Amino acid sequence: MKTTRREFSRLVAISAGAQLLSSIPALGEDRTIGYCIVGLGRISMQHFMPAVKMSKKARVTALVSGHREKADRMAAEYGVASRNIYNYENYDQIVKNTDIDAVYIALPNSMHAEYTIRAAKAGKHVLCEKPMATTVEDARSMIRACEGAQRKLMIAYRCQYEPAHLRAVQLIREGKLGSIQSIESAFGFPIAPNEWRLDKKLAGGGPLMDVGIYCLNASRYLTGEEPSAVKGFSSVVDKDGRFAQVEETLSWTITFPGGVLANCTCTYGSQMPGYFRVRGSKGTMIMEPAFNYDKVHLSGQLAGGEALDLSPDEPDPVQFLREAEHMVECILQNKEPKTSGQEGLRDMELMAQIYRDCEKKSA
Amino acid sequence: MKTTRREFSRLVAISAGAQLLSSIPALGEDRTIGYCIVGLGRISMQHFMPAVKMSKKARVTALVSGHREKADRMAAEYGVASRNIYNYENYDQIVKNTDIDAVYIALPNSMHAEYTIRAAKAGKHVLCEKPMATTVEDARSMIRACEGAQRKLMIAYRCQYEPAHLRAVQLIREGKLGSIQSIESAFGFPIAPNEWRLDKKLAGGGPLMDVGIYCLNASRYLTGEEPSAVKGFSSVVDKDGRFAQVEETLSWTITFPGGVLANCTCTYGSQMPGYFRVRGSKGTMIMEPAFNYDKVHLSGQLAGGEALDLSPDEPDPVQFLREAEHMVECILQNKEPKTSGQEGLRDMELMAQIYRDCEKKSA
Repeated sequence: MKTTRREFSRLVAISAGAQLLSSIPALGEDRTIGYCIVGLGRISMQHFMPAVKMSKKARVTALVSGHREKADRMAAEYGVASRNIYNYENYDQIVKNTDIDAVYIALPNSMHAEYTIRAAKAGKHVLCEKPMATTVEDARSMIRACEGAQRKLMIAYRCQYEPAHLRAVQLIREGKLGSIQSIESAFGFPIAPNEWRLDKKLAGGGPLMDVGIYCLNASRYLTGEEPSAVKGFSSVVDKDGRFAQVEETLSWTITFPGGVLANCTCTYGSQMPGYFRVRGSKGTMIMEPAFNYDKVHLSGQLAGGEALDLSPDEPDPVQFLREAEHMVECILQNKEPKTSGQEGLRDMELMAQIYRDCEKKSA
Repeated sequence: MKTTRREFSRLVAISAGAQLLSSIPALGEDRTIGYCIVGLGRISMQHFMPAVKMSKKARVTALVSGHREKADRMAAEYGVASRNIYNYENYDQIVKNTDIDAVYIALPNSMHAEYTIRAAKAGKHVLCEKPMATTVEDARSMIRACEGAQRKLMIAYRCQYEPAHLRAVQLIREGKLGSIQSIESAFGFPIAPNEWRLDKKLAGGGPLMDVGIYCLNASRYLTGEEPSAVKGFSSVVDKDGRFAQVEETLSWTITFPGGVLANCTCTYGSQMPGYFRVRGSKGTMIMEPAFNYDKVHLSGQLAGGEALDLSPDEPDPVQFLREAEHMVECILQNKEPKTSGQEGLRDMELMAQIYRDCEKKSA
């Protein structure tokens, strides 16, 4: 009988000082995972790639870009071999490249499905940015493709790997806030004209798909429940041409099976730093800002005024590092990612439901 | 032809230095208005009556209470003659009492209609606490009764007389926030068992009628528009007997004709200090706390980081004083109150619509 890493670690912890031994790599887990970066935009170049650089478990080993010059520049910075630079035409050639274990897809939303499915066919694991796709059907196809190829599919819900968010979930589960009744959450920013996010075909929708998804996903992981129903309204106030195809602002309410109500707003029309407030019978928890790339801030107050200690044990300035390493762990240990394709699909289905309700009349 | 005060003032302003003359009282306006306090609860004794005491334009001249001892105590404190103490049976006798110009009704919601109508029949003006009534039909009857008797009917929406709220409205109208896209607002508190507010017959509904009405009313005066549609969900999480008749929490969304969306939550289950956030293309305005009796706090930030100067020119520690004096002004100058019966009726109709939508399924 083989001893798994977890069992081995437990045995070690029981028999001796576990802390001394915790740096011993488990069998097969000492190798690094090679990421192929698909799409060299801001999130790749400013966030994901620098995070991978900090990791001892992963490396950037290949790039896919339509801009060869930019790709060459990034290749030089990350020590990527010239032969490992691909474009969107020869992307499928990654099948032959053993330097690549997984792809990180950071393309316009409408391209997520295609590049995920092509990666799966090339035998590569997939870490795909949110929103998972532009349609529920595409999301299902991505899951099928990765399952068929027995490759991991993880959606890049970075907040689910961020220590303050994990601490928030933990405190709620421990009952520190008592029974939870409601959540308020919002996220938005004023969008510049001509962004691909304003093109419905590329984006799939407006701020709901891009920033509202943070509030939606948060309301699910904070409650630990799946919504029973949603209602909402969308609108366009600024008739300046930006919102010819997608909504400018969307407000929605979710009801959860246990009775928790989540009230959320997202916009492309104004500054709306992301936040959530969780209200319980024993107190309130506030994260604001909540969905930033770099800094988040969790605070709380118990009924009666007592402040909650909400600082995570392990503050983390680089959210993307944990995300990138979770994928590594799932590949090496053959585990299902915490934010799997199913997790992404659930948000896709809910966003479709919210859009449908926005078309409906009210009482 | 008699010259009204307004005409007289204008003539004076045109012909001479108006500033020098502005302290001359207009004809008939130097007399004080006598308030009869109907219901000696917290809001009367701790807020409204002390405010009237500070006024040079109004006096507490009569009391209505079921508790004679309490009434005697308050009468002594406010110099109310013993003959001017009434109970709920002999209340209609106020018709003969020339010390009373107006009644201030601070009873459980279900009694507002009856005591307003009886006051109108007794020839008295009415300042009635919010919510105006427990049903739309009652609200309409109140308006009819006061119109028929040619008496003023004002609903005690104190925030509409509070300088920081007025400043918020003014800044929005001046375009300081650019085009407004959305409002977030919430208000709630954990309710004690056995409160009359939990009795549907007395209260008419749950937190929506009691505290949510602040968010609803604020979203209307902040936008200056009347809602086009509403959607919502209500729920009960705490099955401890308190919420057998009314909702514990209610979240709703309003869409306004100009496209502004307002997302609001109210609860009796948790601490939820009242606030609103107004989001515009040029900046955000936050009032938090917003609906307290004593202190409110208005702040704002323009896009680009510039702080908005939001301190009202005239800070006001006693919100109820302005409310009480607005009623005086309306009586003496025969003006329609800013927060008239129609204003109260609009909220009643909207709350009924919100409750109806809560019964409806979503997409």
